[in-house]
Parts: sequence; structure tokens; C-alpha cells
Amino acid sequence: MVEEELVKVLKAIKHPEIQSRTLGELGVLQSIQVTANHVQMTLALPLQQTPIKEKLIDLIEQAARDLDPQLEVAIHTTAMTPEQRAAFMAAARGDQRDTLRRNNVARVVAVMSGKGGVGKSAVAGLLAAALQRRGLRTGVLDADITGPSIPKIFGANEMPESSPDGIQPVTSLTGIKLMSVNLLLPQQDQAVIWRGPLISRAIEQFWNDIAWGDLDYLVVDLPPGTSDAALTVTQSLPLHGVLLVTSPQDLAGMVVRKAADLVHKMEIPLIGVVENMSYIACPHCGTTIHVFGPSRADETVRLIGSSLLGHLPLDPSLAMLCDAGEIEDYHSDAFEAVVDKVIQHLPLVVEQDHA
Amino acid sequence: MVEEELVKVLKAIKHPEIQSRTLGELGVLQSIQVTANHVQMTLALPLQQTPIKEKLIDLIEQAARDLDPQLEVAIHTTAMTPEQRAAFMAAARGDQRDTLRRNNVARVVAVMSGKGGVGKSAVAGLLAAALQRRGLRTGVLDADITGPSIPKIFGANEMPESSPDGIQPVTSLTGIKLMSVNLLLPQQDQAVIWRGPLISRAIEQFWNDIAWGDLDYLVVDLPPGTSDAALTVTQSLPLHGVLLVTSPQDLAGMVVRKAADLVHKMEIPLIGVVENMSYIACPHCGTTIHVFGPSRADETVRLIGSSLLGHLPLDPSLAMLCDAGEIEDYHSDAFEAVVDKVIQHLPLVVEQDHA
Repeated sequence: MVEEELVKVLKAIKHPEIQSRTLGELGVLQSIQVTANHVQMTLALPLQQTPIKEKLIDLIEQAARDLDPQLEVAIHTTAMTPEQRAAFMAAARGDQRDTLRRNNVARVVAVMSGKGGVGKSAVAGLLAAALQRRGLRTGVLDADITGPSIPKIFGANEMPESSPDGIQPVTSLTGIKLMSVNLLLPQQDQAVIWRGPLISRAIEQFWNDIAWGDLDYLVVDLPPGTSDAALTVTQSLPLHGVLLVTSPQDLAGMVVRKAADLVHKMEIPLIGVVENMSYIACPHCGTTIHVFGPSRADETVRLIGSSLLGHLPLDPSLAMLCDAGEIEDYHSDAFEAVVDKVIQHLPLVVEQDHA
Repeated sequence: MVEEELVKVLKAIKHPEIQSRTLGELGVLQSIQVTANHVQMTLALPLQQTPIKEKLIDLIEQAARDLDPQLEVAIHTTAMTPEQRAAFMAAARGDQRDTLRRNNVARVVAVMSGKGGVGKSAVAGLLAAALQRRGLRTGVLDADITGPSIPKIFGANEMPESSPDGIQPVTSLTGIKLMSVNLLLPQQDQAVIWRGPLISRAIEQFWNDIAWGDLDYLVVDLPPGTSDAALTVTQSLPLHGVLLVTSPQDLAGMVVRKAADLVHKMEIPLIGVVENMSYIACPHCGTTIHVFGPSRADETVRLIGSSLLGHLPLDPSLAMLCDAGEIEDYHSDAFEAVVDKVIQHLPLVVEQDHA
């Protein structure tokens, strides 16, 4: 059989950039159809516009021609799904570990901003708390290695424990599974003075080596910026969507548009934008104060081609609950509406995963 | 002469970690005194507690013994001054460039926080504007490569021009010299998706290749976090002091303490702490609203062993001026008091530099 032999030969081709792995191991060959002398083939690539594409196609055509010079080969390419991409990255690193195989995380959502201090961690924490309250099994991966806030706002300070399945995440009061570099430090105010490669490795380990178990939603809290942490989360984790957080300042809008640019370039779906710190209501006279000027969320959303999921006020009671480690006690109708939209966008339809 | 020959031999020793450079080129040999068979020597090291210290001492003792087995060598070490450290780093990279030699920057101050969104860029901009208003020649180096705010708040959008002396910084309305990655991008909302090493190289180039000329103060605006940008600025720039910015949240305090930990470990002088966003006054009834809870600056300052330079309110008019690119028009007595303290801490006494 030409087809069988061809599949065998192609699967054994070494990836031109990841020399220790074959196309078979990396899951690049998505489908092959052979009809007489015609071969139709689809390659799944981590990114549709990968610079290695042409070289890969050349290698495959050459291998097919070596097998049978009569073969006419037509090669199509497609972008990998988030799950395929994560498996690709894991295979590239050679770490198909037991932990990873035992974890079963249905949806991975990253909370990103580009800009610091707009309330990413609060939004990530509120989202996780709301999902957990709705009966969904939820976790939070704190990808902010040098400025981690998650343990503090959830009041978590136990040391994670090892188990045969990997390191166990710490559990919040309502049962949310948490992992953060601050849970691993002897003192919370100790600096983690790491350059990029270590930051990336820590985030990959938080995904690969933690016994997350069965989760409906894993919320990833990203640090500001579009450097190592954001790149590693978008490249190495099977992200299903990104939630962007902004504040009314035009300045924040500009930096958030940079984050949106990264999300687009990495071909990750954008769930929508939350405008945080929109206003504060004076507790004495009720006047609405636009602390950071008038909202520019509509313009930001238009410029990045996304949708606005809601405006959240600056709420001193939220700041206090965060400082007290009691973010799970905060309720707001405005935020519940945001959660509805996130779930609508990334529904937990188990059938989809087997499609 | 034993002394002359000894100096020659020691200066020619290759640095154990920077093999292409000698101790002479790196400025490690600070002083040598030879009396009969006794050699007294002081080595200047980039950091007092450098892991290479013992190895360096061994090499020097061995070289001295090879020259004359009778010599008794006593070696002391001292930490380099910021200027010596910058020259060391430049020599290590082999880039004693013309630009660097032509620049004459008297004082370099970094504005740092660890935490995002506490107003680092606003504080950096206000500090520069106040120094310039007082007749001091001032520049701002925007070390926030992935989330740059400086051009926006100063209303700067020209492209920097090349000159025989290096790239010319852009000049603000009041004459402040500015350099930021956003001045070099075709579109302001384009993401700079760079991993750590590129971030570091960009910051080093902003110091080495920009024709800053004669400056009294260069203010460096750092991004959040204690990773590549903060490390590169503290290691490769001749910092005279760090100004820390915090907000009243306990959460911010924790992350700011991490930044202070980095500053201590890098042996850079801490000028003091500014608490930003302390409160807002209701424009209708005048009530003071503690948006982020009560101030914890006193506790933060006590924990890091520094002093509080001032509390700044959340001021919508500042947010608006920043968005309009008119930060230089903002005046506040509270901030002028902070500037007084910065100048007191880092006075511009030219004689000191020749001491």
C-alpha cells in the first residue's frame, strides 16, 4: 500500500526546527488522502503564518517524491486548535508527563491587559469566584511571577503539597484551586528577580506539573506587558480565549490595544473587554466621579474589533475585600453580567471536545 | 621595579567570567601599595557580594606569587560607585562608544514600583517636569518597553533623528529630552512582543546610543515587575537612586516591598517612597474618599527601612492632562514637596563627582 508507506515515511520526518521530534510526534500531519497518484494532505501548524511552513512543505514533497516520483502532492495547511498547539509545544519540549495526562481542564481563559494596575487580578479573581459559585469547578493559575496578587486576594498562604500526581494546588475557601509563585516563597514580600527564561519556565511548570485534576474553567492571571509571560501563556497553554481589562484612560486604552495586537498575532480568540475603574460614587452625596476621565471603552473596543462586556466601578469595598483575602465574598450585578457573557462565549459543552 | 611589573601583570589578568576583558580594562584594580614584600591591594567589584570574588582573589594571589614567591598579598574589596559599575558593564560588553563618552549625565534616578498602575509614569513625568521648571536640564528614559506611556503624557510623537553623536532624543514643550520605544514605532498601539533579552538590549541602547548630551537629571521610568527591565536598569545604568511609588492597597504594598528587596539586593540607594492615589476629594461635596482603603504607606516605609516623601491624591485633572499630553502643565504643592526631597537626597553638587 502506497498510502500506508507514505504515512510512515512522512511521520518519521524530523521537524526542521525541532530536530529531536518527528512530524508524527508533533501532530503536524492532520490528514492524508491518496487517490491513484494524487496525494491530498493537510498539515496542522501551531500558527497559520509560521516562517517554517515553506521548508516543511519542501521536506514533505521531497520525501513523497523519493518514495514514488509519480506522486502528485497537494498540501494544505491549517492552524492548530488550542489543544493541538499545547500538545505540540509539550511534545516539542519532550514532556508528555503523567501530570499533564491526568489533568482534564475543559476551558482555559486568560485575563490580560498590557497595562498594569487596571484590576486584572481582581477581574481574574472575581471571574473565578463567580464560576465556582455557579457550581463550575474552577482554578486560577497566577502567571504574574514577579508581582503575584492571587494568594493575597484569596487569603491563601499554605504551602502547596506534593502528591504522586504532581504538586497539589492550594484550595480557596469556596474550593477554587490556586497556584502562584507567592505560595512557594518563604516570605510574601521577597522579590523574584528572574529574567525571562525562568519566568517562562515557571509558567510552563504551573501548567504541566500541577495536579489541577478535573476543572471546568482555569483562569490565568497575566502580568502587564507583552513580553515573556504573555508570550509563554499564549504559546504553551491551550487558551480558549482572552478577556482584556482596561481603564477609562486613553493611556490605558493604548496599552490595552497593544495587548489586543499580541492576541491577534497569536491567533487566540478575544472574548471581549471589561472596563474597570470606570467611576466612583461619592459615599456622602452620591455624585458619580469619573476618576480617570470619561470612558473610552467604546473606542477601544471598536479599534480592536471586539465587544465591551461591561463597565465596573471603582469600589473601595472591593479593594478592602482584596486586602483582607475575601474576594470571594464580593457580589456585583455588573460583574455577574460579565460572567454570563464569558460563559456564553466559551460554553462548557462537553460534546464539543469530542467533535 | 616590583610594583610597576606587578601592576602590569595584574592588569593583564583575564576576568574569569568575562574572558575577553582584562582586570585593567574592567577597572577592577582600584589601588595597589607595595612596601618591601607586602602588597596592599583594593579591588572594586560591581557588587560587594559577587560570587566571583574568591576566584578573582585566587587568580591575583597566584599571579603575584608567580612573579615573586616572597610577596605577601593582602586584598581588600569594595563596591563600585554607580559610575564605575556602568563603565564596568560597558567595558564588559566592549562598547566604549563615542556617544557614551560625549554624554554627561550628572544624576540618574529610577522610578520603580513592582506593582503596575500605581502611577509610576505620572510620577516620573511630574518629577521631570518639576526639575526642568527649576532650570535643571532633564531627560526621561522610558524603560517600559512593552507598555510605554512617556510619549503620550508629554504629547510627543515625532520620530527621533539620527546625528553624528547618536540618536537625538525628542524634546518636550518645556525642553525635556525624551526617549521611548513608542517614538520608534510606526503605530502607537502596535505591540512590542519581545522576550527578555531584547527588552534588556533596548534599554541598554537607550542609555548607550542616545545623544543625551549634558543633563543634570535623567529620570528612568521602569515597568512593573522585578524581571529583565528592572535588572538591566539596576545593573547597566549608573543609578544614583530609586524612587518607589506605591498605592494605599496592602496588595500594592506587598509588591512594592518586592521592588525594595530588589533595590537592596542590587545595592542601589533608595531615595524614598511616594504614595500615589491616596484619596480623592468629591468635586461636589468635598468628602475625602479613600478609594483604595486607608493608607498603609507608613507600614510599607517602616518594613523596607525607607522614608515617605509624600501622599498624592487621585486627581482626575492629572489623568486628563496625561491623556492630552500636557503633563507639564500640572502643578501641585504636594508634589513640589516630593521634588524638594529628591533634590535634597541627590543634590547636584558637581564637585562631588570629582571627589
